Amino acid sequence: MLQRKALRHLHRPLGILGGVILAMAVFSAASAQEPTTEETVADLVSALDTTWLLVAGFLVFFMQAGFAMLTAGFVRSKNTANILMKNMIDACVGGLLFWAIGYGFAYGASDSANGFIGWGSFFFDDPAGFASWFFQFAFAAAAATIVAGSLAERLKFSAYLIYTVVISGFIYPIVVHWAWDVNGWMSAFNEDPFLASGYIDFAGSGVVHMVGGWAGLVGAAILGPRMGKYGPGGRVNAIPGHNIGIATLGMFILWFGWYGFNPGSTLGLTGGLAELAAKVAVNTTLAAAAGGVAAVLYSKALTGRYDPGLLINGILAGLVGITAPCATVDPWAAVIIGAVASVLMYGAVLAIDVLKIDDPVGAFPVHGIGGLWGVIAVGLFSSEAGLEQAGYSDPSKYGLLLGGGFDQLAAQLVGAGAIIAWVVVTAGILFLGIKYTIGMRVPPEEEEKGLDLLEHGLDSYPDFGPTGPGVFSPGA
Amino acid sequence: MLQRKALRHLHRPLGILGGVILAMAVFSAASAQEPTTEETVADLVSALDTTWLLVAGFLVFFMQAGFAMLTAGFVRSKNTANILMKNMIDACVGGLLFWAIGYGFAYGASDSANGFIGWGSFFFDDPAGFASWFFQFAFAAAAATIVAGSLAERLKFSAYLIYTVVISGFIYPIVVHWAWDVNGWMSAFNEDPFLASGYIDFAGSGVVHMVGGWAGLVGAAILGPRMGKYGPGGRVNAIPGHNIGIATLGMFILWFGWYGFNPGSTLGLTGGLAELAAKVAVNTTLAAAAGGVAAVLYSKALTGRYDPGLLINGILAGLVGITAPCATVDPWAAVIIGAVASVLMYGAVLAIDVLKIDDPVGAFPVHGIGGLWGVIAVGLFSSEAGLEQAGYSDPSKYGLLLGGGFDQLAAQLVGAGAIIAWVVVTAGILFLGIKYTIGMRVPPEEEEKGLDLLEHGLDSYPDFGPTGPGVFSPGA
Amino acid sequence: MLQRKALRHLHRPLGILGGVILAMAVFSAASAQEPTTEETVADLVSALDTTWLLVAGFLVFFMQAGFAMLTAGFVRSKNTANILMKNMIDACVGGLLFWAIGYGFAYGASDSANGFIGWGSFFFDDPAGFASWFFQFAFAAAAATIVAGSLAERLKFSAYLIYTVVISGFIYPIVVHWAWDVNGWMSAFNEDPFLASGYIDFAGSGVVHMVGGWAGLVGAAILGPRMGKYGPGGRVNAIPGHNIGIATLGMFILWFGWYGFNPGSTLGLTGGLAELAAKVAVNTTLAAAAGGVAAVLYSKALTGRYDPGLLINGILAGLVGITAPCATVDPWAAVIIGAVASVLMYGAVLAIDVLKIDDPVGAFPVHGIGGLWGVIAVGLFSSEAGLEQAGYSDPSKYGLLLGGGFDQLAAQLVGAGAIIAWVVVTAGILFLGIKYTIGMRVPPEEEEKGLDLLEHGLDSYPDFGPTGPGVFSPGA
Repeated sequence: MLQRKALRHLHRPLGILGGVILAMAVFSAASAQEPTTEETVADLVSALDTTWLLVAGFLVFFMQAGFAMLTAGFVRSKNTANILMKNMIDACVGGLLFWAIGYGFAYGASDSANGFIGWGSFFFDDPAGFASWFFQFAFAAAAATIVAGSLAERLKFSAYLIYTVVISGFIYPIVVHWAWDVNGWMSAFNEDPFLASGYIDFAGSGVVHMVGGWAGLVGAAILGPRMGKYGPGGRVNAIPGHNIGIATLGMFILWFGWYGFNPGSTLGLTGGLAELAAKVAVNTTLAAAAGGVAAVLYSKALTGRYDPGLLINGILAGLVGITAPCATVDPWAAVIIGAVASVLMYGAVLAIDVLKIDDPVGAFPVHGIGGLWGVIAVGLFSSEAGLEQAGYSDPSKYGLLLGGGFDQLAAQLVGAGAIIAWVVVTAGILFLGIKYTIGMRVPPEEEEKGLDLLEHGLDSYPDFGPTGPGVFSPGA
Repeated sequence: MLQRKALRHLHRPLGILGGVILAMAVFSAASAQEPTTEETVADLVSALDTTWLLVAGFLVFFMQAGFAMLTAGFVRSKNTANILMKNMIDACVGGLLFWAIGYGFAYGASDSANGFIGWGSFFFDDPAGFASWFFQFAFAAAAATIVAGSLAERLKFSAYLIYTVVISGFIYPIVVHWAWDVNGWMSAFNEDPFLASGYIDFAGSGVVHMVGGWAGLVGAAILGPRMGKYGPGGRVNAIPGHNIGIATLGMFILWFGWYGFNPGSTLGLTGGLAELAAKVAVNTTLAAAAGGVAAVLYSKALTGRYDPGLLINGILAGLVGITAPCATVDPWAAVIIGAVASVLMYGAVLAIDVLKIDDPVGAFPVHGIGGLWGVIAVGLFSSEAGLEQAGYSDPSKYGLLLGGGFDQLAAQLVGAGAIIAWVVVTAGILFLGIKYTIGMRVPPEEEEKGLDLLEHGLDSYPDFGPTGPGVFSPGA
Repeated sequence: MLQRKALRHLHRPLGILGGVILAMAVFSAASAQEPTTEETVADLVSALDTTWLLVAGFLVFFMQAGFAMLTAGFVRSKNTANILMKNMIDACVGGLLFWAIGYGFAYGASDSANGFIGWGSFFFDDPAGFASWFFQFAFAAAAATIVAGSLAERLKFSAYLIYTVVISGFIYPIVVHWAWDVNGWMSAFNEDPFLASGYIDFAGSGVVHMVGGWAGLVGAAILGPRMGKYGPGGRVNAIPGHNIGIATLGMFILWFGWYGFNPGSTLGLTGGLAELAAKVAVNTTLAAAAGGVAAVLYSKALTGRYDPGLLINGILAGLVGITAPCATVDPWAAVIIGAVASVLMYGAVLAIDVLKIDDPVGAFPVHGIGGLWGVIAVGLFSSEAGLEQAGYSDPSKYGLLLGGGFDQLAAQLVGAGAIIAWVVVTAGILFLGIKYTIGMRVPPEEEEKGLDLLEHGLDSYPDFGPTGPGVFSPGA
């Protein structure tokens, strides 16, 4: 034991080199003899791969801040604290639930596990799997928090608490199991993948973003639009967000975090994975950039102005779109995928307004539709070399547009359809259940005055604005 | 020399692989012969451990942004620039002072060093220790900046400048020396630790957070409450913060940065430390989550509303609480530690209001009490396996609640008591000295109008709000 | 193929260790035999160096958020969305243009490449170079976005679109080629460097910051000052920024990102580069800190108040100043360099006001002058050991103030002069071309009402402030 204690001596100004010598000495003392070079190398491989999961997980976790700023900026000031609390509680509930049961439903590998659900590893405490759990937790929290935006400005906080428990603990983990666990029925990592090569979703356009986006759509449809959103005669009223500055910050934090989300999904760096991660970073960048440039162009062409909200959501749609195919396509394809995602996002914005489904921050267009496009794009643009480099089982089923045939596209469509069906049914039951028990929606007078005042007892900006100092004056 | 120059060729589109080959060739040329595999492996071990200190240090540094946003959001708009400047100057003064003297008092290992104070390494310039210095600097800046919140909205800026010099250069480094240096009298890394196993504080619930929190308490008590905070008959007036959005952002940045603070405190990744870092990341996550969920529950139960300020501070209390025990407890214990930290934090909020000590952002409840709880929790929840994995000298002194007896708890209580005594006495002398020389507090009319206007000559939000465009109109 | 698929099994709760064993097994299976220890070590070296480029690149990318918040905070609320959109579109256009042509002009190494311009690698898709491209892209985006601040509050958005294409795709890449490519005429990595040792600019005080800063100066001079900035009789009117909170956040994000910018410019970690990166992190910290402390002191001395804008820009000037010399100077010199950069920045603020050149955020003083000082400081303060450690070809040409003579300083002055000349001429042609074709400046009534309303059709803060709810009321 004495030897291991010495590791903490690194605090001393011995400096790193001294520390390393010490550490190696310790290592040797602990194993009662010099570690062989092979042992040290095996430790390095393990350490480097673990570190990648951790650092990438930190970045993905930071996306929580991005979602919080993005959605807060896109709602009215009177509902700011409410949406922020929903974002914060997602991270907290997501952590506890994904620890207690979610991870077990996703990856539990006991004998009770099957193609539909994992079983085991509840209240996760496997020392060898902590880095993996952490990385996966950050994804779960992201999936949960996407929905907050769709339901903003009218959903009761208590209803949200129930929702977030169910999605973090059950709805999302099941999709993870299907798509990413070796036992999952549609997983590309299944020993005997369905439709030959299985459903391919490298970093989760479908598994994460579609789950959040489509659950948001179902919730928004059941919840109904905000007061005043749709006027008589099909008129759609803009309800502008209160702070484009923090919304922009949110977008940049999300883009930054996406470098953990996508490149981190290599799940390691050794054995050639570092080079794959670099390619993923490039594709992620180009798709975001193309999504943004497309948005500026169609925004000017169609609306006559350069709309910052469309630019933000165009970039995000590009990021969502490249999330599934980021490892298996070439840079030129990433540019196309990002630009198309942006266009489809805007189409979805227009479409749901026709359906009078009110999604205040555009979560469904960005994540639901951008995610669906990403899943499809795998079947269109993946190259044979790309599938091989990313380690998928059957690179001969490459993208349709590159001449690889319909096979992979078929698997993608079936997978996407299954995810949509699962989410629509389970989220539908969940939200209808909430609606007809404790109720989903705040009373009209609360919606009018803002959720901050009545649910949270505060004005988010007591020194400014319409509710101003008169409501909560300093010292009162 | 020519060979080393070639390293910069990595800029060229040779790409990484080419670069690596080049680098290895250079390495070999520089040492006039092929480096042996053993030499390359030793370099890799050193490089990976150094990188961890750097990357973790970057994250800890970024917590400065978190503290700035958190505290700015929790004060009134008229004091925004003032609190922001205090945060910025903490990072700057902390950097220079910790370089000039602080690190030397903490870790200086010359013959003049003793159990109370380190000596040597002033104006730090040891190439082998730069990564270590950088990581430690980021901690010092965090300790200093915690205090700003407790003294917000009434402390003179010149008084703050003196305070921040003294805490970064002297008060904090001494505690570091006691607890983390091999020569420190209560250090668990001392060859002959006090009370057999020494005081255990893996990432600094006591060393960093208690120092900041208790210094803040002393300062706030000496400074007195803000005008209007306490009314007649024991009435406590809420003085709401002006911007819950940036406060939430601050919390998320802090949580993100905590993944450098806690996992980074392994100080390396090789020799099994990567797996320890992963466990620490999981425990950090679960404690934060539990702190947040607890806050939502007791907030609703006790105040009838979901309070975002309590949620923010509940999460932070969970993070502070897990900082000491993060490496030595199991995940289930992290959940309990986080939840209890959150409850104790709220108790402290109520308690200091009874004492009429005005801590505008709750820095003492979060850091002072959360930190104290974290130090104690080490003695309650640490497992034998956990102590061994983290490299502490005597794992047989494990947590009381797991049956390990009172020994470690006793060491923790003595250590916490010593830190509190040191901080209360030195910060007390410091603040009283300031009070009776240059004065601590701004004049009442300045407090009324806001510190921004008179200390900094600006309105932080000239386009909005009460002081609005009339005061500093554009172009005036 | 089957073997590689197994890599994705890491998702399973095998945990890392299991994953590693699997990965190694896969590696072995893929190469049809056990990889030798030498092969695994070579892979580790490559993986670690690649990862450093990626992680550092992520941090540099995140500086986009910093620039966005900084400049948004420094302009008036009526121009917030406009400046944010310019920042966002920089990242997007920068990504596409630097991919299509910029990288090729900078590092293209075909036979057509010469000392002035690179050629080749257009539409970049070299798998081995993706990490390098990504890191370089992040720098290009930074150079482009610096200019937005100088032209804020009056430049047409369409003019900005043209500008950002040209700087990302041409003006900036040429400077990179000159200074950092092995073929560049003034590059220190040229086999036969000009003036014996070549122009030394480790992380880009000149290559990145001077390009942005001087292009901004030229643009601001051609564009003319904002209405009301300069009154009769040489009067300079302050036009305060609208949100010091997000400006402070921007500074902290930039400082955080600078730990990618400077330490990341080692371009690797192995072969001793990790220790160099640590030194760079320390120097970066100390220069920023000294820049900030200097700003507080001269702000109080010269203006009678503690100015947060000067503190922010003082820190940034320190960071810009240390960017070139960060690898080759000792910590004490970093302190001096940072403090002097801060003073020179303030001098430049006063000087351009005399010239009636209106730079709303101080981009030229910070980046143009801070960058120039940084380039010069290399020739004044670089130590022989520092030049050797950083791999430069002729350490005997060390800093003038350390007794190394004028040689390196001369190279620095020629290099800086060449960059200034290039940027002034090309940016001058560009902006004059825009001015006399589509026009640079918005009409006076638009400038009065704010660019947000007329270019982007929104009020950035519809719930607050002068334009308030009356303009875009919710539901309208």
